[in-house]
Formats: sequence, C-alpha cells, structure tokens
Amino acid sequence: MEKIGFIGLGIMGTPMAGHLIAAGYPAYLHTVGEVPPSLVAAGGIACRSAAEVAAQADIVIIMVPDTPHVEAVLFGENGVAESISAGKVVVDMSSISPVATQEFAQKIEALGADYIDAPVSGGDVGAKAASLTIMCGGKDSVFERVRPLFEKMGKNITLVGEAGAGQITKVANQIIVALTIEAVGEALLLASKAGADPARVRQALMGGFANSRILEVHGERMIKRNFAPGFRIALHQKDLNLALSTARTLGLSLPNTATCQELFNSCAARGGDAWDHSGMVRALELMANFEIGQSA
Amino acid sequence: MEKIGFIGLGIMGTPMAGHLIAAGYPAYLHTVGEVPPSLVAAGGIACRSAAEVAAQADIVIIMVPDTPHVEAVLFGENGVAESISAGKVVVDMSSISPVATQEFAQKIEALGADYIDAPVSGGDVGAKAASLTIMCGGKDSVFERVRPLFEKMGKNITLVGEAGAGQITKVANQIIVALTIEAVGEALLLASKAGADPARVRQALMGGFANSRILEVHGERMIKRNFAPGFRIALHQKDLNLALSTARTLGLSLPNTATCQELFNSCAARGGDAWDHSGMVRALELMANFEIGQSA
Repeated sequence: MEKIGFIGLGIMGTPMAGHLIAAGYPAYLHTVGEVPPSLVAAGGIACRSAAEVAAQADIVIIMVPDTPHVEAVLFGENGVAESISAGKVVVDMSSISPVATQEFAQKIEALGADYIDAPVSGGDVGAKAASLTIMCGGKDSVFERVRPLFEKMGKNITLVGEAGAGQITKVANQIIVALTIEAVGEALLLASKAGADPARVRQALMGGFANSRILEVHGERMIKRNFAPGFRIALHQKDLNLALSTARTLGLSLPNTATCQELFNSCAARGGDAWDHSGMVRALELMANFEIGQSA
Repeated sequence: MEKIGFIGLGIMGTPMAGHLIAAGYPAYLHTVGEVPPSLVAAGGIACRSAAEVAAQADIVIIMVPDTPHVEAVLFGENGVAESISAGKVVVDMSSISPVATQEFAQKIEALGADYIDAPVSGGDVGAKAASLTIMCGGKDSVFERVRPLFEKMGKNITLVGEAGAGQITKVANQIIVALTIEAVGEALLLASKAGADPARVRQALMGGFANSRILEVHGERMIKRNFAPGFRIALHQKDLNLALSTARTLGLSLPNTATCQELFNSCAARGGDAWDHSGMVRALELMANFEIGQSA
C-alpha cells in the first residue's frame, strides 16, 4: 500500500485525510499549528515539516488556501522539494493559479518526481461526505496511480489534460457559477420589482431552458433571504481573482467575470465576506434600492 | 366549443393555429399578407381584419413580433378594440413589453373583455411539436378558461401572476439564457486559451454545480463552431432590449444584461444577426484575438 503524506489539515484537509487513514493508508501529516489529535488517534503520524512528510511518503497531497501557500510548502524552507525523490508524486488539491501550477509541476518533475493538480469542488460538506468533484491535470499513468486515493475522497473524478488543466477547469467552474448566480439575481430582481411573485417566476423558469442547479438552489436562497454560507464570498473573490489574473496573463477579456468580482467587492465592503456567494444579489439590490420580495 | 380567433400567422402562429384547428375549434384567422392556404384547407376562416376576427371569435389569440404590432392589432384602425365585447378574451402570446402589457390589459378590460398575456419559449420547433413553454399573466378564472387551448400548443403551462406577469417571466427567462451563454463563453475561452481541451473541460463541468442545459447545448455549439440558428441573435437583441428598457422604467441596473446586449450588438455589426445566440462567444473571441479550439 502506498504511503501517503497530507499537508494542510484545515476544514477541507482534515476530513479528506481522515478518509484515507480510515481506508488503511499509512499517513504522514503536517499542517500549520497542531495536527488534529483525531487524525493521530486514527493512526496518522504527525511530522514537523513538509520536508519530513516528503521524505517518508510516496504520494504527497497538499490542501492549503492559495498559490503562495503551495509555493511555500513546495519550495520554502523545510519544503517538499528538499526531500522529494524520483518515483514519488506531489498531488496539489488546493485551488490556485493555473499558470503558477505549470511552473511548480516543471520544477518538481526536474527533481524526478511527478505532479498532479487536482482541485476540488463541493466544499466542506463534500469533503466530509467523500463526494467531492475532482478536476485533474497531469500524466495519464500518474493519474491512474493516484486514482484509488481520489476515489476515497470524491465521486466525480476527471483527468482533463496536462499539468495545470485541473486548475484551469476549476477556474472555469467558478466563472460559470458566479456569473449564473448573477444572471439569476438580475432576472429575479427585475421580476420582483415589476410586481411578479419571484417564487412563482423561479418555478416557471425551472421548467424551461433557463433552468440550472443554481436557479434551483441559489434562486431559492435569494427569495428566502438565506445568505448563511454555504460557499463564502471571500473564497469566491479569491477564485475570480485567479480567473482575472490568468485572463490578463493570457491576453483575454472577461467582462462579466470582472463585473461579478466588483459585485462581490461591494458585498465585502458592507461586511459580507462571509455571506454565501448567492448574497451577490445584495449588491444588485443596493444599486436598485430594492430587495427581491419587497412589495414594489 | 369556444370559437377562436388567431391574428398573426407567421413562423410561430401558423403551426400553433394549425393545432387548434386540428383539435376541432372553429377558427377565424387574420395576418399581414395572405392567410396560409393550408389553414383554410384545414377548416380555418380567413378574415379581412382584426376587428372582424374579434367580432366572430370568443377567444382572440395574437402572435405578432413586437409591442407596436400588438398595439396596432388591438387599438389601430380595424383593430380588436373596435369590435370586442363583454365575455370575450384577448390572449397575447407575442413576446412584448411587460409595462405596455399592463396598459393594454387595462384598456381591454375597460371594454368588458378579459386579457391574458402568454408568451412562449421553445421557438418554431416547439410550436410545430406543440411543446412550447407558456408563461401566463392574468386572472385565474380566465386562465382556466383558456387552458384547454394552451394544452393544444404547449406542455409547460404556468400562471405566474396578474396581467404582465407572463411577459415579465419571459424577459427573466431571456436574461438568464443570454447571461448563461456568456458565462459558458468566458469559461471555455479561458480554458482553451490556457491550453486545455475545451471539450474535456465542458465534460468535467457537466458533472458538477456549474452544469446547465446551456452548458450542454451551447457549450457544444461553441466547441463544434456550429452557429446555425437555432434562436437568432436579432431576436435575443429584441428580448434584451425589453429587459433593459423595462429595467430603466422600473429603476433597476442590470449590468451583465447590458454587457450581453453589447456583445450581441458586436456580433450584429459583423453580419451576425442571424447567427444562433450562442454565437455571442464570437464577440468575446474577437476581443481576445483567439477562438475556442484554436491552438494556444
């Protein structure tokens, strides 16, 4: 059985590592602060650094917040690069820059090891339920080697392409989710201000071509005024920042992604960093001086 | 059996009226130009004016291109208002201004007749197959009276609210459809320019929260470069014009609807009025000097 490493044991990493330990994998663990005692009790081995994890484990999984954290784990002091060796694999499941990922993969491969980027969607609920969607970039043979681990953590697991393709797919996912939330917000706000019952409009639209899970789930949140997260605006701001900076690097214009980021920024300016991302509609409502469901 | 009238026998009205005649309804018909001989052969009665239709029929259906055409049919010379009387019903199935609709309904009701707005989605394919989605506004009792006719023309039939609510729902539908097409366009363009295979990205996204019929149908069109209509950009421009003018009247800001209309305008400027609305992605591609599927 492959020995695994897991670096980054936060709200996502802890349950994900837990599933692997429960499946019997020898697990070398490291995180900022203390390794959760529950994971040690279950058989995990706490290590003092990322380098120590990489020295012990065959497959090193990383699950940290953003690009600079991955960079520090890999190439910082006592980082993975100090002790990784040929035949081992780095699996970055964080959601970070696709462009930086291609660079990280090259540097790890230059050390003789392999690299897979494998960001997820599904949030902490999906992490706990082992039902994450996992979007992967890397070599086919390496993906097949890691797949049994992915299957302990997720359900919808796709190899999209070469290194970076997983991160690109995750960014594309977050663009569509944000812009569809905004679309539902504009539509329900117009309908409500025009005097129609937004709940009945949503119901009618769910029968047709405009339907989506986002109309169902987030349309209902907007009508019921339930903006408890869910997926926090601060996280989606991070993702759209990746989208916009990647687009600028590549020479693309993403006009509605830019607008959605501004709407998130407006929410954050009003203390809404921790609202569910469907709370983006509140920025549209502020501009209209009208809330969905208010009598017109 | 109610006597029906049908005014406006174009690409949509002809098959819709045909279903009602086939179901045995006595049908009084009028249109710009000649009433289609096929409808007369099936038993329809050609009339010389909208006023003549309204004098004969109990329920007068209208299916014409835009707000000014409905206004002319109702209140112009030899229009419906000249001969409609108490106990009859006007059913406007055109897609027009929600605000004008409320005014038209008041004026018809002042003459003792009833009014239902009932715009459709599904296009000429849905009209021929009698599978239209029909979004209605008006009184419950009047809706129930007209429902048997709707059931000969469509499948997903909803009374959303008072007069105008059908038109509002249709506008909301067209906002979501346009903005979701744009979202899919931004996402696939970014993925493709970053070097990922857009077909595999689409496939991966279809497994998750970003999925929609629009990702499936229009995402595929963007990848396969199939912009033969379908639903033409010129028609969606008309619908977003209704959205934006209604929003201005109501005091709302719809930033991404405005951007999508500008992208449609850019397509039209390049001769794309008759492209399928998924061709909106070509305006994004022009700004990026890159096409989905081109090698990066």
